[in-house]
Amino acid sequence: MSYNLPLEQIEAARMRIAHYVRHTPLLPPPQLRGDLPPQLQLKLENMQVTGSFKARGVFNNLLQLDEPQRERGVITASGGNHGLALAYGAWRLGLPATVYLPASASADREARITAWGARVIRHGAAWDDANARAQAHAAEDGLVYIHPFDAEGTLIGQGTLGLELLDDVPNMDCVLIAIGGGGLIGGMGAAIKQRRPGVRIVGVEPVGAASMRHSMAAGQVEPLPEVRTIADTLAPRAVSGRTLVLAQRYVDEIALVDDAQMIAAMRWLWTECNQLVEPAGAAVLAALFNGAVSVDRHAHPVALICGGNAAAESVFAAYSG
Amino acid sequence: MSYNLPLEQIEAARMRIAHYVRHTPLLPPPQLRGDLPPQLQLKLENMQVTGSFKARGVFNNLLQLDEPQRERGVITASGGNHGLALAYGAWRLGLPATVYLPASASADREARITAWGARVIRHGAAWDDANARAQAHAAEDGLVYIHPFDAEGTLIGQGTLGLELLDDVPNMDCVLIAIGGGGLIGGMGAAIKQRRPGVRIVGVEPVGAASMRHSMAAGQVEPLPEVRTIADTLAPRAVSGRTLVLAQRYVDEIALVDDAQMIAAMRWLWTECNQLVEPAGAAVLAALFNGAVSVDRHAHPVALICGGNAAAESVFAAYSG
Repeated sequence: MSYNLPLEQIEAARMRIAHYVRHTPLLPPPQLRGDLPPQLQLKLENMQVTGSFKARGVFNNLLQLDEPQRERGVITASGGNHGLALAYGAWRLGLPATVYLPASASADREARITAWGARVIRHGAAWDDANARAQAHAAEDGLVYIHPFDAEGTLIGQGTLGLELLDDVPNMDCVLIAIGGGGLIGGMGAAIKQRRPGVRIVGVEPVGAASMRHSMAAGQVEPLPEVRTIADTLAPRAVSGRTLVLAQRYVDEIALVDDAQMIAAMRWLWTECNQLVEPAGAAVLAALFNGAVSVDRHAHPVALICGGNAAAESVFAAYSG
Repeated sequence: MSYNLPLEQIEAARMRIAHYVRHTPLLPPPQLRGDLPPQLQLKLENMQVTGSFKARGVFNNLLQLDEPQRERGVITASGGNHGLALAYGAWRLGLPATVYLPASASADREARITAWGARVIRHGAAWDDANARAQAHAAEDGLVYIHPFDAEGTLIGQGTLGLELLDDVPNMDCVLIAIGGGGLIGGMGAAIKQRRPGVRIVGVEPVGAASMRHSMAAGQVEPLPEVRTIADTLAPRAVSGRTLVLAQRYVDEIALVDDAQMIAAMRWLWTECNQLVEPAGAAVLAALFNGAVSVDRHAHPVALICGGNAAAESVFAAYSG
């Protein structure tokens, strides 16, 4: 499969979405106990609107709809950050939105999506069931279905984060990026490597949901027999044809982390940087702590903290007494 | 009482501590549902090292010690952010540190202070008891006692945050600052008003621990008969002579917030900005939400998010299963 994301399209997307997303901050290297290399910088994309990079792909899709599409509205299936970003984007632009959630999605997640005015429909036990129904619904009602990672507009939108990082850290020589369906690393990889081919791109997957590593080893998209990880936003059973091709071309290596390592990295980010993130957001740090990746030979490495939507309800409940 | 913090001393402190503290980010105005005025900016001092502004005053004190003082070490009493900042600062500079904690301080807090190598001593039921013992201990052993808010080095150190804000937002015309013992608003007020007298400075206190408002009404330092608030870092029973004088001179008004309003504001910061903060950190937003303060007539208002050390242990426990 030949597939590419032209740099000009990613640059155009960046202009398109600039008014709607945040330029997220870099955290200066915390000069602490030597837990991490002092030259490492953290890109806090957990501070993006709706708490993850997903807002970038969503806005890039929504801002290219024509008027009849806008009137009919958009639809997706996602119990994770894409659904939340779509609900927000549709609210912001005044479009109707429908989000299918599998039974496994939390009530808190449903409440946050509903709060942005989207219609939530529960269907099926797992994401695949909800997604099949969402696609059928889109066809029946003429709605625009927006895939969480395997849509060109989504991939190009995520690529804008690569360009933003190159602006933030002009000499960046290595970046660590978590992999779920592969849309983020595919888009970012295309953006970064087309502009600066020498940057080392390291993917990080949960050992219990290493769908990209599995398909890369097989040389084709091949679903995992099962996924088992607390990092629900990194847990699709299979990557897509597009994201596999992009990873084959742009990803230099893939490191694995387990659940306990992600929780320890979450705790580190909270204790040392006061950033509470979801397990996926801490996965890249877990890969440094467990030794799966070393950035010692790099002068300007970056760890991308991709999402922050941890399940924090217990904190507020405790304060409410 | 005549008392002042010369601007040159605050400027000197800023140079002194620059290498040890973070220049914390401003959050671009979240263009959301109109919950807050769109021109409002959030200064995320919860991202300061050890999670609060306290690191500023601590480093300003520690960096002025002479060699014999450094060798004997420093001591304080604080179940809150000052104790944590002191432990960190002493670790960073290689000094021995002792922190007295009252029985009411959490085990988690003790663990974080101990992790920086400080000696923790439990004494008494409340802060006043622990503090009296810490001062006696300092006298007995010749240690440098560093008061959480009523020390000149502390006040001047907190003032550096005022200068940083004026750099961040050169046209700042209003700033909201939470009040505990009054050290933060006193130091910041002195810095800001001496440089730009027209900036409106609004203090925010819990209705159940309005110690500054109480003493300002009395015209002298007068302890509250009791304090009752979830915002433990805003809960000293009395301000000090120094902080009262600074507040009388520099604070334009004081607004009150209750516990439920602070929890709602914590939840808003989490949901809309992915920043988990302690109740004190959200107090300034609570004062906007409850209508106690309006910044509508200001073009460049700032809300200072002063501290982030929420009790988040339940989040990690839930992920650990």
